[in-house]
Amino acid sequence: MAGGLPQLQDIVKEFTRKVYQPGYDNYSTLIHIGNTDGWVKALMTLCNPGEGILAAEWTYPSALSAMIPFGIKPISMPMDSQGIRSDKLRSLLSEWDKYERNMPRPHVMYTIPVGQNPTGVTTEAARKKEIYDICVEFDIIIVEDDPYYFLQQGPYVRPEERIHDHISFTSDEDYIAQLAPSYLRFDYQGRVIRLDSFSKTVAPGCRMGWFTCNSIFAERLERQSETSTQAPCGFGQSLVTALMLEWGHEGYIRWLRALRLQYKERRDFFVDCLHKEFHVEHEIILSGASEGCNGYLVFDRPMVSPSDGYEKYYPDARSKAMFSFVPPTSGMFIWIKLHLDQHPSLKELGTAGLEMKLWELLAEAGVLFGPGSMFGADNEVNGSESIGHFRISFSNAEAKDMEQAIVIFATVLRKFFKNI
Amino acid sequence: MAGGLPQLQDIVKEFTRKVYQPGYDNYSTLIHIGNTDGWVKALMTLCNPGEGILAAEWTYPSALSAMIPFGIKPISMPMDSQGIRSDKLRSLLSEWDKYERNMPRPHVMYTIPVGQNPTGVTTEAARKKEIYDICVEFDIIIVEDDPYYFLQQGPYVRPEERIHDHISFTSDEDYIAQLAPSYLRFDYQGRVIRLDSFSKTVAPGCRMGWFTCNSIFAERLERQSETSTQAPCGFGQSLVTALMLEWGHEGYIRWLRALRLQYKERRDFFVDCLHKEFHVEHEIILSGASEGCNGYLVFDRPMVSPSDGYEKYYPDARSKAMFSFVPPTSGMFIWIKLHLDQHPSLKELGTAGLEMKLWELLAEAGVLFGPGSMFGADNEVNGSESIGHFRISFSNAEAKDMEQAIVIFATVLRKFFKNI
Repeated sequence: MAGGLPQLQDIVKEFTRKVYQPGYDNYSTLIHIGNTDGWVKALMTLCNPGEGILAAEWTYPSALSAMIPFGIKPISMPMDSQGIRSDKLRSLLSEWDKYERNMPRPHVMYTIPVGQNPTGVTTEAARKKEIYDICVEFDIIIVEDDPYYFLQQGPYVRPEERIHDHISFTSDEDYIAQLAPSYLRFDYQGRVIRLDSFSKTVAPGCRMGWFTCNSIFAERLERQSETSTQAPCGFGQSLVTALMLEWGHEGYIRWLRALRLQYKERRDFFVDCLHKEFHVEHEIILSGASEGCNGYLVFDRPMVSPSDGYEKYYPDARSKAMFSFVPPTSGMFIWIKLHLDQHPSLKELGTAGLEMKLWELLAEAGVLFGPGSMFGADNEVNGSESIGHFRISFSNAEAKDMEQAIVIFATVLRKFFKNI
Repeated sequence: MAGGLPQLQDIVKEFTRKVYQPGYDNYSTLIHIGNTDGWVKALMTLCNPGEGILAAEWTYPSALSAMIPFGIKPISMPMDSQGIRSDKLRSLLSEWDKYERNMPRPHVMYTIPVGQNPTGVTTEAARKKEIYDICVEFDIIIVEDDPYYFLQQGPYVRPEERIHDHISFTSDEDYIAQLAPSYLRFDYQGRVIRLDSFSKTVAPGCRMGWFTCNSIFAERLERQSETSTQAPCGFGQSLVTALMLEWGHEGYIRWLRALRLQYKERRDFFVDCLHKEFHVEHEIILSGASEGCNGYLVFDRPMVSPSDGYEKYYPDARSKAMFSFVPPTSGMFIWIKLHLDQHPSLKELGTAGLEMKLWELLAEAGVLFGPGSMFGADNEVNGSESIGHFRISFSNAEAKDMEQAIVIFATVLRKFFKNI
């Protein structure tokens, strides 16, 4: 019974077939107790001490913390606006020197391909196909940790152009068809272990989800559950199974579509608030995790000249963008890049020091963001630029709290850049 | 939140104080997702690859299976009627040669001290004190896996002498006072990690319980949960917390006392059935896991002579006991020793082969016992005697099913010993 209630296994297997459309027929589904533990089981099943795991340069901290005690190291992969870069993946693997690296070539990749935690980026179909093909060539198992899959909101649009959310009016088939496909869709070899979660869709804290993978991996994962977590909580399984039986496939998809809309509204509201409190300029951002994205440069708000009443920028506004960000198309996170290169104390405190100082100032003022340093797969590299980061979650804040948080953020940020 | 709902943590902390009375005040309690996972977290926290863990020679298989993939080996400890032998423990530790053993002296012990799985034996207060003191001397951390604690039924008494279950009529304080104490009671140094389970008391499959340990271990265990299982299932926690709040301490103790009575009745009924189907002789058993116990030797049922109607034994009944057992005073298991030394195929199949052959014959006839070989902490030693074992669970079978199972068992066993 470590794989969960048979009824629930059947429900998620059918759901997987309809929504993710795996590239092979005889895949298995097993209920697990949340994606984090699913990932731990996958890494314990697939890796030995001394090995490395490919991971995005910014990634979910618990996924990293879970591997390190086993003597398994993350291999940081450069990202762009679609997550892990396929060109860098190929060059890393083809040039791998096990003696120089003191490590065999990695054979496992960990990825959060939709609304990535923390950057919010999504790996679209073409990129996934490229990465999958490279993984075939170099025999890499892909662990697809995909809790935010159903929070695909579509692009952010400014309120004045925000007329009609056409996705809300499509058929279920068309809705599913426009979602970024799972790696399972390309998986003709059974080299993907997909992790789905009910925690982001049915209830946070329900600690339940499922593996989709080939039957050989499934058997090993089930054995591992038998000697550790055993079956997921029976109460939780009963409630989720009853809900799914009551709703049926259509009802659950309806729920997920409504959930998407909720998150879209929160995302839109949050980005709208940023526009209210700051002067935001639309810009193509060309480097790093947001390469090629329609990003925003964020400046302090224009001052109103007391003499003539006209708005005007600070004289040096262009040269002093305080941060930049790309409105995410999925998920629950906004990843902002702090432009610290002009901060008066950069030399003294360094990027990491400034990031942490601002984090503390914000926390003291009652606003809690995720400091970027938490998410670095390779802390040596990630501390070297003059760009700090914050992950901002818009998942569970009420509108008035978001508004207030951004007012506080703007106030603190102004003082911070003036070193007051 | 990886340590569980604060209300539930408080409830179990107070329960622990009242019932287990730890030897120090500032112990911590954390909710976990069942004792098996609790054990895995404890062993991952306490041990490194290449180390060994002290464990009873017969023990819970998942506890063994969990350690082996980490390169951690069980060190098999001889048992008697009270579980792990303190004299053997002392000599093992004092004579430990890390070069000869190719392993440092163990610093962790795994034990199921009440209604042990699989043998059913219970470690009483004096033995626990002896073992605790040895663990102080040799700096051993004791992991006390105690899911069957509230299934302490008292000794088995034959129906004709079974008049009055006096424990049912004592006050709660007297009821608690007569229970075998937890290792926590002796733990003046904070070297015990106790694992309690709701799975055997509230509902099987609820996958919930709690750690009791010192605050340093608790912090590490909580960190480990944060990067793997996270918080226990919220639905399950809510239900159990609501139940505990509704019942209060007194209500929960009342429930546990009723549960004890249920298990006592099942144990009694099961052993009564063995008396009906077999000829059972009361005997002090002197060796091995039942040393010094009031055990039973079990022979084939006397034949009724068709000529005179008097019962008579087989001529060689004394020399052909088929198995022996000690009625457990706690838990849900009866551990039987198969006397295979006179089996016609012993030389050909060996003990392990005969045990498995009988297991298969029983399974084919519709009765499922646990084969002893599953439970061996050291398979090399445990296969060498001419005694096979079965673990029989009386936890969830209905009376008529138990009766029928024993009729089948007797029939199959007779044929098995005659090699038919």
